[in-house]
Amino acid sequence: MRAAVMYGAGDVRVENRPDPKIADPADAVVRVIASCVCGSDLWPYASMPAADIGRPMGHEFLGVIEDTGADVTALAPGDLVVAPFTYSDNTCDYCTKGLHISCRNGGRYGLDGVDGGQGEAVRVPYADGTLVKLPVAADSALLPSLLTLSDVMTTGHHGAVTAGVGRGDTVLVVGDGAVGLCAVIAAHRLGAEQIVLAGRHTARTDLGREFGATDVVAERGEEGIARVRELTGGVDKVIEAVGTRPALDTALGAVLDGGTISRLGVPQYEQGPIGPPAFMRNITLIGGASPARAYIEQLLPDVLDGAIAPGRVFDEEYALDRTPDAYRAMADRRTLKALIRP
Amino acid sequence: MRAAVMYGAGDVRVENRPDPKIADPADAVVRVIASCVCGSDLWPYASMPAADIGRPMGHEFLGVIEDTGADVTALAPGDLVVAPFTYSDNTCDYCTKGLHISCRNGGRYGLDGVDGGQGEAVRVPYADGTLVKLPVAADSALLPSLLTLSDVMTTGHHGAVTAGVGRGDTVLVVGDGAVGLCAVIAAHRLGAEQIVLAGRHTARTDLGREFGATDVVAERGEEGIARVRELTGGVDKVIEAVGTRPALDTALGAVLDGGTISRLGVPQYEQGPIGPPAFMRNITLIGGASPARAYIEQLLPDVLDGAIAPGRVFDEEYALDRTPDAYRAMADRRTLKALIRP
Repeated sequence: MRAAVMYGAGDVRVENRPDPKIADPADAVVRVIASCVCGSDLWPYASMPAADIGRPMGHEFLGVIEDTGADVTALAPGDLVVAPFTYSDNTCDYCTKGLHISCRNGGRYGLDGVDGGQGEAVRVPYADGTLVKLPVAADSALLPSLLTLSDVMTTGHHGAVTAGVGRGDTVLVVGDGAVGLCAVIAAHRLGAEQIVLAGRHTARTDLGREFGATDVVAERGEEGIARVRELTGGVDKVIEAVGTRPALDTALGAVLDGGTISRLGVPQYEQGPIGPPAFMRNITLIGGASPARAYIEQLLPDVLDGAIAPGRVFDEEYALDRTPDAYRAMADRRTLKALIRP
Repeated sequence: MRAAVMYGAGDVRVENRPDPKIADPADAVVRVIASCVCGSDLWPYASMPAADIGRPMGHEFLGVIEDTGADVTALAPGDLVVAPFTYSDNTCDYCTKGLHISCRNGGRYGLDGVDGGQGEAVRVPYADGTLVKLPVAADSALLPSLLTLSDVMTTGHHGAVTAGVGRGDTVLVVGDGAVGLCAVIAAHRLGAEQIVLAGRHTARTDLGREFGATDVVAERGEEGIARVRELTGGVDKVIEAVGTRPALDTALGAVLDGGTISRLGVPQYEQGPIGPPAFMRNITLIGGASPARAYIEQLLPDVLDGAIAPGRVFDEEYALDRTPDAYRAMADRRTLKALIRP
């Protein structure tokens, strides 16, 4: 099969790889119909040291079951399924609590002999626990929105849920990437009344407004904080969807004492400002990597009936062989989120 | 009047100071009956640079109203009252939310011309908003327990509440100081079933057991973490009642993915480990400086009927003139918590 492999910063290649086969009775092989490039793929794309052995890329995909292991009972060849961005058994203590990202048997695509999602097919461990069947045809127009349940929409939802967003709330979303925009959808869906989106890419913040953002703050740093405070008087709930220290500093500057910052962007820092000022102000830091699997069934009805349309974050489609172009376009911010069709 | 003043590390003096007088119509003057030394007083006692002008010390006290300003309506001379460790108006947006520690008009004792609690009398700003009347006589045997509502008991309670402790829970309390011991009381009071107390001072951990700790872990560092995990399988809720990085590291090591660490000890660090590992594990950091005022009425009935006896943390009494000895004894860990009688 053909699949995308990263060999270092800026070096993504689509090459021939062995066709995935059932290796464990709990496996399924999924023939990929749609996958995409994640904002988090851009970090290694910017910084990965050159390597002789590349890493299969991609962790968001949906497709059709091609083969199943002997222990797979909930899925059958021909089923259309979406994969959350990590696999999980859905039976361990963490999965039972809804924290599938910490599954005792779980893991990540592209590692440990498991294929990446940016390819023609993927062997998925713990298929029954991981994959969610989709009640639509393989050519449904809903596919892009369903694909976001792999990661960005379930991640945005994780931010809104852990920040405790509810009816009538004022929420600040920091970051106008696909996750930030999905966080706007999620906050709106949970009833937030005022949603301030901090971002400076007009095309993206315009989409954010369509998703439910009531205000956009393009200023950064102290100026951005002042603008949020001017608009809101300060916010109790922040969803930080970038992962950089400046984004966290904006969150800390805009949040009211006693408020909550939910982090969705993988931190690009090891240490953060949780000393006396944050302590005296009773700031709560919550969030983290989304347990996407826990949220898929919950959000699925809203995608199916069109109540939310997170697939609109895909502003460009690429054939699989053009995956390197997709990375470049996203890194250059010419594309918000690239959908890949094998 | 006589009052304790700190002039530098290790240098606490009891000296004559002006008698407090009403300066604002919302003030009251309280004649102190009992005050105490706080664990947080020990940080400046260890590190304050020598100064010509000293700082009046103490922020935990109870006493009798001696005089009130024209705007004070809820209190009258002769009332026995307890003071939370910061003053607050009890009417601003933060106070209304129960976050009195962030009161828009609030402040700290010993600063801005307000007396410290370790003295014969204190002028209390926003007396109606700050002070809570106590329905006992000034010679009640309950006074030590009532005094803990100033800080340590309401702080321990803040930890248990923000950590979300409830019936049947397993909780780790890091630290066997007065706040840690009060956190044990609070966790027990809220229904925790297994309470592991991490501390190495046998007299204190023994008291912790009487307060409701089911297990004591004396080991530190990796060994301590391993012991907590052996006893509990890891915990969902941690109350960190020390404030040092090793204490936070113990909390992070013992908490399960998706778990909550409530911090009660003022951080002795500016930056902390909130990078990718904490993010991937969905660790929540909550807590902070306690809004003591918000909790006093809530805990008062349990103190009055003897359901909780947090005053047992006072293991030594000192006359006001011996306050320097009280500091020394606490710094040397000969005294757990010193009660001071003017």
